[in-house]
Amino acid sequence: MNKIKETISKIEKIDYFLAKEAQKRLDSLTKPQGSLGRLEELAKQIVAITRNENLEFKNKVIFTMAADHGVVEEGISAFPQEVTAQMVYNFLKGGAAINVLARHVGAKVIVVDMGVKERLKVKSERLKVKKIGLGTKNMAKGPAMSREEAIRSIGAGIEVFEEEFKKGIDIVGIGDMGIGNTTSSSAMVAAITDRPVEEVAGRGTGIDDKTLSHKIEVIKRALNINSPVSNDPIDVLCKVGGFEIGGLCGIILASASKNVPITIDGFICGAAALIAYKLEPKVKDYMIASHCSAEMGHKAVLNYIGLSPILDLDLRLGEGTGAALAMGIVEASIKILNEMATFKNASVSGRIK
Amino acid sequence: MNKIKETISKIEKIDYFLAKEAQKRLDSLTKPQGSLGRLEELAKQIVAITRNENLEFKNKVIFTMAADHGVVEEGISAFPQEVTAQMVYNFLKGGAAINVLARHVGAKVIVVDMGVKERLKVKSERLKVKKIGLGTKNMAKGPAMSREEAIRSIGAGIEVFEEEFKKGIDIVGIGDMGIGNTTSSSAMVAAITDRPVEEVAGRGTGIDDKTLSHKIEVIKRALNINSPVSNDPIDVLCKVGGFEIGGLCGIILASASKNVPITIDGFICGAAALIAYKLEPKVKDYMIASHCSAEMGHKAVLNYIGLSPILDLDLRLGEGTGAALAMGIVEASIKILNEMATFKNASVSGRIK
Repeated sequence: MNKIKETISKIEKIDYFLAKEAQKRLDSLTKPQGSLGRLEELAKQIVAITRNENLEFKNKVIFTMAADHGVVEEGISAFPQEVTAQMVYNFLKGGAAINVLARHVGAKVIVVDMGVKERLKVKSERLKVKKIGLGTKNMAKGPAMSREEAIRSIGAGIEVFEEEFKKGIDIVGIGDMGIGNTTSSSAMVAAITDRPVEEVAGRGTGIDDKTLSHKIEVIKRALNINSPVSNDPIDVLCKVGGFEIGGLCGIILASASKNVPITIDGFICGAAALIAYKLEPKVKDYMIASHCSAEMGHKAVLNYIGLSPILDLDLRLGEGTGAALAMGIVEASIKILNEMATFKNASVSGRIK
Repeated sequence: MNKIKETISKIEKIDYFLAKEAQKRLDSLTKPQGSLGRLEELAKQIVAITRNENLEFKNKVIFTMAADHGVVEEGISAFPQEVTAQMVYNFLKGGAAINVLARHVGAKVIVVDMGVKERLKVKSERLKVKKIGLGTKNMAKGPAMSREEAIRSIGAGIEVFEEEFKKGIDIVGIGDMGIGNTTSSSAMVAAITDRPVEEVAGRGTGIDDKTLSHKIEVIKRALNINSPVSNDPIDVLCKVGGFEIGGLCGIILASASKNVPITIDGFICGAAALIAYKLEPKVKDYMIASHCSAEMGHKAVLNYIGLSPILDLDLRLGEGTGAALAMGIVEASIKILNEMATFKNASVSGRIK
């Protein structure tokens, strides 16, 4: 817990003064004022986060964190549990969607085993093993993990970030992999936002109506049996969370503590963002909501924190896929700020009215 | 007119069979079916347009077409007319927003002088001069151009595309520059969609309430005096259009005739798309609506044609800026199709229910 407290203590308000300076610069560029809309807002946010008015995104890193979920034994997923480990291998071989999209935007993917059930038989410099356990316990029967494990999972996320940060990170994206983790995330979101389970539980990887009803019933059972305390985010994580979700929360806290912007992927990353936000509301301004997931609970997350997504492409894959695409847009916003000509140096006339 | 007719005669329906084949391939990739939402739709559309299941976007070209508008003498713009020519110089020096965003997505910008008022004092292989005239006439007093000029402007767009196509084009983006061209576009959109002027006229580069009222009045006057025939798109272009808008229409028709996808920028390109669509409805499926502009008439355009934008970033700059950003997303969709591992070759288990 000391590591978490120490990290949180280093999170400062973003620099609104620099955001204003960035707006002045944006207004001097050869375009009508404000005409690049959301791109201008993003550019200002990045300057205010990084305290750097001439940032280049040299090092873009996507952390894709994987873990298994004991609740899968309740039959709530369309895919078998072994897929979590299989997809980790796929990430390391570069064949998954996140690999393709990360390459597209020039980002590196760091895969983190936060608690995959299988002991992975592979070594790679792109794989970090921070196993908190071999999957969580079945939350429908008791807590998914101990409080100590929840704390360790967040701490492991902080560690992972700090190890990579030494090599240089200008912007972070986060993503998840874990069969069963929309069930866990729905329970977390219901617990924290106090929304009915029916409003925050969706079809995950594509379950049918019958399985969805069952999933909702399982989530309700998990909430009843565990009674997570909504204002104690660590309790929520421990009772109905997942190891990868704790790890993602750690990445968010650590990024904010080092003035690094974070593009948040979809619903599972949203649940991690909720925990981080409850631990320290100042993280909000360090986060960029990549997209609005087709998974229905994601809107509840975005509304609760007060984030407005930059893409709406009906994605529901996870892994960090939305975060990667959003990173490309965020980078574009920074290039606008840094590379455009001003009215003065391009000899373009200003407005007349 | 023969050139236009000939081009239109070569536009075929996109290949829906290949779209289905692409869906099969998408469904074999290591992700839940349909989980990449709009990206999957885009990938299928590109395959169906290009008839190529293994396309790479080697040559991305953005055509930014510029011209002046006589209606500017009515005082409807926030910027002086000379800015059109000044921005063309800026495009050629690489300092405008479109240059920055095109570089970001790896696209080339071809600037076309379709009728800038000034005779440009510069030569560049990235500038094509296809002047139809030194700006249009004031549409508030009579037709903006002759019918013959309208036809020539579309023909010039076709020519520009065909010249570049010889060097290779895999995807096209279109953009505009022309002080006064939201006024012209609003008139065109009102004429074709039969919407009230108040619903399709916006603040352009950022005019105040008083100038907006005046702009609306000027557009109404132009429509009254010219009575453009809504079902004769050439008549609409000639009465209240612009040379760059005709040129953009030509690019759309020529791209479709060569099975090249077109990312359409904002409101002005939307007006050009309306003309192209009225001339040949089959072009619809070749077009990708990049974004929904903050300029209010753009929604009317998208609804009329039946296009759904892929970005919503509150842009209102033009030049092709939204088209460039969208091109990056479209390219990502094609990479997903071509670069992801299948369940089979990655040894990932399929769904259980």
